[in-house]
Amino acid sequence: MSFDPSTLRYDAHGLIPAIAQDHATGEVLMMAWMSAESLRETLEDGRVTYWSRSRKAFWAKGESSGHVQRLIELRIDCDRDCLLLLVDQTGPACHTNRRSCFYTAARDGGEVVILEPIA
Amino acid sequence: MSFDPSTLRYDAHGLIPAIAQDHATGEVLMMAWMSAESLRETLEDGRVTYWSRSRKAFWAKGESSGHVQRLIELRIDCDRDCLLLLVDQTGPACHTNRRSCFYTAARDGGEVVILEPIA
Repeated sequence: MSFDPSTLRYDAHGLIPAIAQDHATGEVLMMAWMSAESLRETLEDGRVTYWSRSRKAFWAKGESSGHVQRLIELRIDCDRDCLLLLVDQTGPACHTNRRSCFYTAARDGGEVVILEPIA
Repeated sequence: MSFDPSTLRYDAHGLIPAIAQDHATGEVLMMAWMSAESLRETLEDGRVTYWSRSRKAFWAKGESSGHVQRLIELRIDCDRDCLLLLVDQTGPACHTNRRSCFYTAARDGGEVVILEPIA
């Protein structure tokens, strides 16, 4: 069976959530959204392109920052409404220059920052 | 700063995506949705409760199957619109009885099932 992005289940805005995970360490780096077209771009190019909901535009990850994500493997969940991207991340994934966007932990009833900026 | 679920950014339906990751292995198990109330339940109880969009009801993970998720740590992303749940998963996370919902990989232009049911 060949893989066809149009067979996925997109939301009312034509988008599907995509989780980026470091292929080597397993660290979850970020979650963003893809359209069928941004997924096609990603598969063709090998570099991850999301859809920016705020800018309503393609978002070629790292295009301005250089912090690109190279796609190692695409995985699809059981309901075909969520993607897992195993990626090779150059530098930080987060716009705060932290490796991961998930740098805040809820601990002991409060919030703790557990990652510092790396760039 | 104390952690208050009402400070998160929910979508138009009052929901926020939550990624469940095995706290020990780093495996991404599933993605589902939480309401502020299901997150409060989860924090109080220590067992993960989602919001089922199809049933429009609380979904205490594993309530019928026994495949519960114990919350080890809650992490919040930079935009406060996505959650990462580090969990201790009993048995399979997926309703297909696979450990993870992300059991399909896009490889060589096709789809490959990379995990078998464990229960």
